[in-house]
Amino acid sequence: MKLGFVGLGKMGLNMVENLLEHGHQVVAYDLSADIVRTAVEKGAIAVSGLEEMVAKLGAPRLVWLMVPSGDPVDKTLSSLLPLLERGDMLIDGGNSNYHDTLRRKKELEQKGISFMDVGTSGGLEGARNGACMMIGGEKNVYTALEPLFSDLCVSGGYGYMGECGTGHFAKMVHNGIEYGMMQAIGEGFDLLQNSGFSFDHKEVARVWSHGSVIRGWLMELVAGAFHKDGELGYLSGEIADSGEGKWTVETALNKGVSIPVIAGALFRRYRSRSHDNFSDKVVAALRHEFGGHGFTEQTEKD
Amino acid sequence: MKLGFVGLGKMGLNMVENLLEHGHQVVAYDLSADIVRTAVEKGAIAVSGLEEMVAKLGAPRLVWLMVPSGDPVDKTLSSLLPLLERGDMLIDGGNSNYHDTLRRKKELEQKGISFMDVGTSGGLEGARNGACMMIGGEKNVYTALEPLFSDLCVSGGYGYMGECGTGHFAKMVHNGIEYGMMQAIGEGFDLLQNSGFSFDHKEVARVWSHGSVIRGWLMELVAGAFHKDGELGYLSGEIADSGEGKWTVETALNKGVSIPVIAGALFRRYRSRSHDNFSDKVVAALRHEFGGHGFTEQTEKD
Repeated sequence: MKLGFVGLGKMGLNMVENLLEHGHQVVAYDLSADIVRTAVEKGAIAVSGLEEMVAKLGAPRLVWLMVPSGDPVDKTLSSLLPLLERGDMLIDGGNSNYHDTLRRKKELEQKGISFMDVGTSGGLEGARNGACMMIGGEKNVYTALEPLFSDLCVSGGYGYMGECGTGHFAKMVHNGIEYGMMQAIGEGFDLLQNSGFSFDHKEVARVWSHGSVIRGWLMELVAGAFHKDGELGYLSGEIADSGEGKWTVETALNKGVSIPVIAGALFRRYRSRSHDNFSDKVVAALRHEFGGHGFTEQTEKD
Repeated sequence: MKLGFVGLGKMGLNMVENLLEHGHQVVAYDLSADIVRTAVEKGAIAVSGLEEMVAKLGAPRLVWLMVPSGDPVDKTLSSLLPLLERGDMLIDGGNSNYHDTLRRKKELEQKGISFMDVGTSGGLEGARNGACMMIGGEKNVYTALEPLFSDLCVSGGYGYMGECGTGHFAKMVHNGIEYGMMQAIGEGFDLLQNSGFSFDHKEVARVWSHGSVIRGWLMELVAGAFHKDGELGYLSGEIADSGEGKWTVETALNKGVSIPVIAGALFRRYRSRSHDNFSDKVVAALRHEFGGHGFTEQTEKD
């Protein structure tokens, strides 16, 4: 297939390489001309702007967006939409909030453009060698584009989730589950670390990666991290988040669904970034006030 | 190798079959003569009691216990110990609490018997076709018995955890992580179920099992469960527990380690078994008392 590809970040560039390797023609565009050059070296067709990209695609056009969620998607769409025609197809393969996806779908629908929301998982390794894709949108468009999804994913690693919005919804929930699983793994190793025994974390993670009930890719990844450094001394415990866990909890609040473990994992991330946590200070102050309990004095370095 | 095997439950019988298939000689004993007969049909040597079992083993003897944790282990040991001699080796492959293991180790040590604690994971499928084993005890005994562990486990699926106690400690933490991961998966599908979209859970679980970040055996198992019944209509949501999650939280309390997600998953299991939860009643009563808020009246059927 021939398609336009917008956004050559870490995920996008790897996916373009994967597409080229499978014989697809990719007209690649990114805000950075340097990255476009890299894609061209891999075999992509270079363009210097969206107009040129659309001109190089035959109708019906297919454009894959792989840009950061939020404003970057809206900005790209506002430039791209005037260039597209009825019957064209647009894929948002990024981590967009499904509410944004439903809003954009309405606008695209009015112009007769098919909009597919594709939640992409599997990390950089998956983008390059076979990802996992949760796909929402019109069923007939899904069927038409299936060869593309099949080439981009590992065997069995893509599926039709339902109407537009379901792809990004499923990816959001996937990431929420990921938060909970990662936190459970982190807590387990913390307990081994403070057990009084001398566990070799990389040995434990290796064994747990082979034949155990909790085997899976996350356990293999943590085995790899411990192989580099059993104490993880090269990083701090501050955990960032890119929003999908927050959206999962927001959605649970809106739907009235109880998800204490996923919410707890998210809040634990917030706590991990808080160096002089105010709720902790309040509780320490209260202990002192009612019971005369001691407290640790604030030092300058904090 | 020739070994005695005590306890032919679901796990034990599968492991005996696996051992026999690998050419080991197994002298099998269980309280149920019927189950011993089943093991004999598979090729095991039958005995009607521990004395006969020990008599059929050459020194140094090796006995593998696969009996339920707690009293059954202590009862078996009190019958077995008088029959064993200095230099014999005893393996507890069940889910014993590591405190019990440390206590038993002292007693066995006094009699010159080597005690290995082996945490076994992988479910029935693993017991039959290749498990995962976390092994604690004397290093030289581990090395001597490695061919046995190698035959019982999947490739890469066993390892030396350290001194006696570490095998069962690692298995306990493994199960704690399992609680957290399972709860996160459960919450994710609850959100899909209440999303307003019509997700096909078995499709979602299948896609997530191939190439996603959260892929692993638990996701494959849930895909299989949804394949049987997408609504899981055949079971209630009451979740039992066999103690390892509780021990994980108890250990965290003793060591002062913060494991909110694993503890939350355990408490959620307790809640799942509580039909007319008293804390919920107290909170509903308080809402009514201070704000005149309505409440759902107790019905006879509860």
